[in-house]
Amino acid sequence: MKESEKNMIYIGYLGPKGTFTEQVALSYFKDKKDYKFIPFPTIQDLLLAADKQDITRGVVPIENSIEGAVNTTVDMLTFEVDLKIQAEMIIPIGHNLIGHKSFKLEDIKEVLSHPQAIAQCRNYLHGKIPGANVVFTSSTAEAVREVSSTVGPRVAIGTVLAANNYGLDILDSDIQDQKQNETRFVIIGKESMQRGKSCKTTLVFSTGNKPGELYRVLNIFSLWDINMTKILSRPSKNKLGEYVFFIEVEGHVEEEDLKDALIMIRKKTSFFKLLGSYEVFE
Amino acid sequence: MKESEKNMIYIGYLGPKGTFTEQVALSYFKDKKDYKFIPFPTIQDLLLAADKQDITRGVVPIENSIEGAVNTTVDMLTFEVDLKIQAEMIIPIGHNLIGHKSFKLEDIKEVLSHPQAIAQCRNYLHGKIPGANVVFTSSTAEAVREVSSTVGPRVAIGTVLAANNYGLDILDSDIQDQKQNETRFVIIGKESMQRGKSCKTTLVFSTGNKPGELYRVLNIFSLWDINMTKILSRPSKNKLGEYVFFIEVEGHVEEEDLKDALIMIRKKTSFFKLLGSYEVFE
Repeated sequence: MKESEKNMIYIGYLGPKGTFTEQVALSYFKDKKDYKFIPFPTIQDLLLAADKQDITRGVVPIENSIEGAVNTTVDMLTFEVDLKIQAEMIIPIGHNLIGHKSFKLEDIKEVLSHPQAIAQCRNYLHGKIPGANVVFTSSTAEAVREVSSTVGPRVAIGTVLAANNYGLDILDSDIQDQKQNETRFVIIGKESMQRGKSCKTTLVFSTGNKPGELYRVLNIFSLWDINMTKILSRPSKNKLGEYVFFIEVEGHVEEEDLKDALIMIRKKTSFFKLLGSYEVFE
Repeated sequence: MKESEKNMIYIGYLGPKGTFTEQVALSYFKDKKDYKFIPFPTIQDLLLAADKQDITRGVVPIENSIEGAVNTTVDMLTFEVDLKIQAEMIIPIGHNLIGHKSFKLEDIKEVLSHPQAIAQCRNYLHGKIPGANVVFTSSTAEAVREVSSTVGPRVAIGTVLAANNYGLDILDSDIQDQKQNETRFVIIGKESMQRGKSCKTTLVFSTGNKPGELYRVLNIFSLWDINMTKILSRPSKNKLGEYVFFIEVEGHVEEEDLKDALIMIRKKTSFFKLLGSYEVFE
């Protein structure tokens, strides 16, 4: 390690260059002097690296307004790593049709992108290039990279950042079916965050094989007047009908009421894990 | 239409031949005399055909014990078609590594399958063929078909039925990371089912932009002593933090208590849709 790299803070994002997570990493960690940005091929690789402290912090998507939970992120944070959510960032997702301007839309034979991006542009593709084959890739940026590798009647769905990186043209923009399309990203790391002015807390718990028990747990929040802002269900991976609930409430875990409520919830659940309290910026 | 086709009942399943839904369709509709099985390329196409009554009934996956809700099915039933769940069938999902016996596992360059099957075998692939490229396909059967089309160092993840259909070898079986892996399929159609001995009812509702309101709705079930057996959350597609809850309870909608509870829930929710009552077979 060079002397100059000693105080480096390593920030992981989902590569290759030009993904939405790179966009979030660059905008959240603005003062780039001490930051080194490291691309990872998958969410799994990134979270495992952060867990082993090969990187200091990482950026991963956790929820999209159309497609719902990003399952790998939620499941890894729940079952496989010991990391805290330190901040969140919500950005609008605009998909672009990216390719070589020399081809007409009606001649396009293949559309490449990540399955979530394809799903979000389903009606557009059906209407504009119904005959084109769909090819899934590991990220939207990877799709753009592949299309840039040869000149042919192929297009990718991806970001403006990726189109610029790989020297391709934007053939159409905002092509997602639901115009209001947002993704929530979280910044993760080993440390817990201090209590701030306005905080949120994320936790996961399981009620075992009684989905009806969820009502009792929500009742505890209600008794303590704690406002729930998010609830996602995920399978517990044991058997059908067993769930893990991923919940977000207002407040910091060091605040008296929330602390008391969580003590009680921990007793009433078969599995409980605190994923962190972090400040909310409006 | 031939005279012999007049009384045909058309059953839709997800093609090509050899998928899990074909397996379910063949086992649920056993008396094949009057049934004609029609393959569809996607869940979307199948549900739209059932909605237009081009087919009488259809089979689609709705939930997996590892990967959770099958989003397309849940979202289409909620927002885009008017169909009833008429029955359910749960089957164990065993994934197989399928290819040409002439190649050694260590020489395999490419693994093809549906993204959900790839996700379910993530650790196996990482351990056994770490260098192989992953290629996503639209179904597991499609992956098997592609691998069968040329002789090369490629494998697919799919069903025994598909391996047999396309004349390929089973190189390894039960390769999914979680040995207990089940998928729940539903039989859908236009008609509501009669009240039977032991029934379940599926409904979806939205609490608008207040996730905390979920507690009030679950309270209604609790007041009427109605047992909830399943709860899934999906985004409402409007904005982050707005959810649709997909809930299953014991009882038939014609039973007095459930009828009363649902009248109240309909009043307390911003969106409400009944997806059907159907008999449970143990």
